[in-house]
Amino acid sequence: MIVGENMRYDIAIIGTGPAGLSAAINAKIRNKNIILFGNDNLSNKLVKAPSIDNYLGFSDISGEELKDKFKSHLEDMEISITNKKINNVYAMGDYFALMSGDEMFESTALILATGVEYLKPLKGEEEYLGKGVGYCATCDAPLYRGKKVAIIGYNEESEEEANFLSEIASKTYFIPMYKKGLTRSENLDEKIEVISDRPIEIKGDSLANKVLFRESEIDIDGVFVIKDSASAKALVPGIETDGPHIKVDLNMQTSIKGCFAAGDCVGKPYSYIKSAGQGQIAAINAVSYLDKLKLQNR
Amino acid sequence: MIVGENMRYDIAIIGTGPAGLSAAINAKIRNKNIILFGNDNLSNKLVKAPSIDNYLGFSDISGEELKDKFKSHLEDMEISITNKKINNVYAMGDYFALMSGDEMFESTALILATGVEYLKPLKGEEEYLGKGVGYCATCDAPLYRGKKVAIIGYNEESEEEANFLSEIASKTYFIPMYKKGLTRSENLDEKIEVISDRPIEIKGDSLANKVLFRESEIDIDGVFVIKDSASAKALVPGIETDGPHIKVDLNMQTSIKGCFAAGDCVGKPYSYIKSAGQGQIAAINAVSYLDKLKLQNR
Repeated sequence: MIVGENMRYDIAIIGTGPAGLSAAINAKIRNKNIILFGNDNLSNKLVKAPSIDNYLGFSDISGEELKDKFKSHLEDMEISITNKKINNVYAMGDYFALMSGDEMFESTALILATGVEYLKPLKGEEEYLGKGVGYCATCDAPLYRGKKVAIIGYNEESEEEANFLSEIASKTYFIPMYKKGLTRSENLDEKIEVISDRPIEIKGDSLANKVLFRESEIDIDGVFVIKDSASAKALVPGIETDGPHIKVDLNMQTSIKGCFAAGDCVGKPYSYIKSAGQGQIAAINAVSYLDKLKLQNR
Repeated sequence: MIVGENMRYDIAIIGTGPAGLSAAINAKIRNKNIILFGNDNLSNKLVKAPSIDNYLGFSDISGEELKDKFKSHLEDMEISITNKKINNVYAMGDYFALMSGDEMFESTALILATGVEYLKPLKGEEEYLGKGVGYCATCDAPLYRGKKVAIIGYNEESEEEANFLSEIASKTYFIPMYKKGLTRSENLDEKIEVISDRPIEIKGDSLANKVLFRESEIDIDGVFVIKDSASAKALVPGIETDGPHIKVDLNMQTSIKGCFAAGDCVGKPYSYIKSAGQGQIAAINAVSYLDKLKLQNR
């Protein structure tokens, strides 16, 4: 276990959609020491939008252009993005421990801006979660040494997880669920078997042991489902949710002290300026949480 | 009484700050027939901001420049501003009646984006509200025919109300509380007596009958206090509030069916993108309220 950079941040922000970015700039303006987890492309959803007309101040702008505006705002504020996926967050009482593979980061307050998963789970996916089904291959890989695993990948990044697993597992299947995956990626390790059939169900007894496809099936010991957004409950154990959404109050406070949430992950409408507005509210309330803590500890 | 334009709008929006504007563009995108009440300057607070750095997408922009961005967004969407002050709103069950002087407008849904009043009320102002103290001279003028009235004006627009009253009242005092008011405005009717002393208190018995200043006092039958933002309770009788703020849920729904609110008027933080985000939420929920009504009436 590596403690990332040996320091505790004031605020960790997970997600680089409009909610996470707005939270980051508002926290930075208030001189907080922040770490922002996400990726340089900011948000797949945003970049793919052909035209956006409901973000007050920009009429008829493409998602790509709006992304560039956001990026230059970050640059002007000297905010950098930490390109790591957070797999689990633990509330430790007076701080949060954020796990990314075998690295750990610490922060006093936390803002979740993780988006929402539009994809329906596969039949059996939720039933076998933690019983052979996982969302983070690099976290759980040691469990599958010398065993058979399948990766159902909804994005290109899942190829990396497949490669990582293939070094440990006896057999690795890769099931690409995204457009580019239709032709076998050059990045995939040769040992990996790609299945182009459409998965229908994950089956098993006490543990998952099969993936059924439309026209075939495979025996496995573990299945990893790799999506853009993780389920809030899988990411932050114990957090209160309402269906797919994290429960928040008007201050964007979640059920966990010091943990705030904003954007698509807290509910509809799924839209950019709503998310940016909530990110600002979350940041301002996270800052006032930090300020109160400081007063108490005087 | 004139019914404005003889029609019922889908959504009336009161206020042209970021919350009202964002509500307007989002409602218009959804093909609703809207009316937006405010002024061409959009928001005094916005225009006066020297530099804004927390509105995601624009770094280090002046309030004046951001106002221009907002205006061109409105123009691109062919949204016009109705430059009238709404003095009272009545919830009529299945519609709202919005009063502006002796004109009336009707709408099925309503979005309040009226901002918040930063100014502390004068001593006695709230105590005598409706008992000699009012916020709308043009509405209550008939009560003061041949009587003595004072207008405590916090903005230039209050000069018009003073002129209007001076035609009816036997004596009109004008107490300017804004910078430009330090020198007597050329727009003020000659009959009006300007008092440059600072008002301290409104006094009376069962009705207000005196305004006390630091160094003088006057006898009056009525006092009008003219501010940028009206109190929510004075504007919409019966609406639930929490201190100076309108109570809303996460959908920006107020305590009155079909009435939504967004921006500074619903609480802190008082900031632009938070308001724009809430305006969007309010509009989307107002639209779904209209759609449900339509289904019911089929």
